[in-house]
Amino acid sequence: MPSFVHTRAVHFDEVDAAGIVFFAKFLGYGHEAMEALFGTLPGKYHGLVVGRRIGFPAVHVEADYRAPLRFGDIVTITLDVTKIGTTSCTLRYRLTRDDGTPTATVLHTTVCCDIAGEPKKIPFPADVRALLEAYRADD
Amino acid sequence: MPSFVHTRAVHFDEVDAAGIVFFAKFLGYGHEAMEALFGTLPGKYHGLVVGRRIGFPAVHVEADYRAPLRFGDIVTITLDVTKIGTTSCTLRYRLTRDDGTPTATVLHTTVCCDIAGEPKKIPFPADVRALLEAYRADD
Amino acid sequence: MPSFVHTRAVHFDEVDAAGIVFFAKFLGYGHEAMEALFGTLPGKYHGLVVGRRIGFPAVHVEADYRAPLRFGDIVTITLDVTKIGTTSCTLRYRLTRDDGTPTATVLHTTVCCDIAGEPKKIPFPADVRALLEAYRADD
Amino acid sequence: MPSFVHTRAVHFDEVDAAGIVFFAKFLGYGHEAMEALFGTLPGKYHGLVVGRRIGFPAVHVEADYRAPLRFGDIVTITLDVTKIGTTSCTLRYRLTRDDGTPTATVLHTTVCCDIAGEPKKIPFPADVRALLEAYRADD
Repeated sequence: MPSFVHTRAVHFDEVDAAGIVFFAKFLGYGHEAMEALFGTLPGKYHGLVVGRRIGFPAVHVEADYRAPLRFGDIVTITLDVTKIGTTSCTLRYRLTRDDGTPTATVLHTTVCCDIAGEPKKIPFPADVRALLEAYRADD
Repeated sequence: MPSFVHTRAVHFDEVDAAGIVFFAKFLGYGHEAMEALFGTLPGKYHGLVVGRRIGFPAVHVEADYRAPLRFGDIVTITLDVTKIGTTSCTLRYRLTRDDGTPTATVLHTTVCCDIAGEPKKIPFPADVRALLEAYRADD
Repeated sequence: MPSFVHTRAVHFDEVDAAGIVFFAKFLGYGHEAMEALFGTLPGKYHGLVVGRRIGFPAVHVEADYRAPLRFGDIVTITLDVTKIGTTSCTLRYRLTRDDGTPTATVLHTTVCCDIAGEPKKIPFPADVRALLEAYRADD
Repeated sequence: MPSFVHTRAVHFDEVDAAGIVFFAKFLGYGHEAMEALFGTLPGKYHGLVVGRRIGFPAVHVEADYRAPLRFGDIVTITLDVTKIGTTSCTLRYRLTRDDGTPTATVLHTTVCCDIAGEPKKIPFPADVRALLEAYRADD
């Protein structure tokens, strides 16, 4: 299956006092790729969250950092879905710099929830599941 | 009248690629002082926003920057209320570094709104007005 | 003169507890447009800041907020240069939603500085000045 | 050994479009506890980073999320050091809400680096090692 690819510049205010992108921000970059993926649905991601009141709270994250990102880098986030269950899935974000250097891999496990009130686990709706299946990792 | 004073450290991830606190962050520091001020109400600020559905969207901001803030600085935010109308007020945040250097002054004009649906201007509730009056600027 | 136009989606984590984009973030959106503008120089913005050690600390900001931005909105930032002096300039960012609603105008006055050590005011280099002149506002 | 405890309020702008603290922010909360821990050294954390040019880039992070944090919550971060090697260590941050609910556990593995130029692995200086040892986890 193909991967879903999202590209963006590192912004001026995303570095920390050591001059490199703050480690927590890598999760945000991955999430932007997920927003872009769900943005391909009719109604987009906010149609899911705000309209249909379906959310995807994180339950587990694992991140491996290999090389820093700096202001001026363009980061490419390659998104694959490594696991799909009835109510949860794991997204993998592989971040690379524009010079080709792999910088980090983030595994992001989320649970599909009805968020109208207190979050309540629900099975993935058919359209969301189909989208996740379309980017299932081969490896 | 006395001012309301709020103090906090500059965090590791709040500087930008020039090594100083990002200019937009100064508004956030001011807002934290406002959160702390409203935190003195029974029910605190989130009691206002989430419980009573009263919000204070900004309508105007003016900021003067005199000296940079850096990671490691402790910033003191001195809050006064320079104007109070029926539905709007202007908060002044004067930011100083722990070495005494004045770094910025931010004027923040907000409108009291019912935010249950689309924001709708309403008069300040009595408890909010009393709190604002208690920190009215002398100058 | 034409304006410089920069467009980006409101991200999932950019709203506040009232459900709208945090007021300080509007300055960050404007700054992203400035980063994109300087990104058209050979060496880009980080070439200026990190390479040539030229920075543009803010000295004054004025923002008028007219309508909220929410997750799911696409914001267009229209950048013009309203004043250019020897060492300082004022950038104007007009933010509109994808439904055409004007949401805010931000005036951002910066000073051109040598930031190798403590920031020291310097005249705009010729390439920076030429770029600013190219987007000078007509009004 | 005792744990190092750091407490802070969830700020107004730290929630996402689902109304809960953004998952990446939990890492930032943990990092604040680390900043506070290193803040107990003479020269504080910025003395390490900016003065002595010693940094601690993340190499691995694992986070388990159990319950959401919301605006208005006070979060307590309990920091222990679960591993200390010659050049790397693992910090554990256990986050709890003011109602006692455990919300997340974050494991943060960092490498001690000379960051004067490109980051270069170095053994922990004696004062940093002693500080880490003082908060070594019992379990």
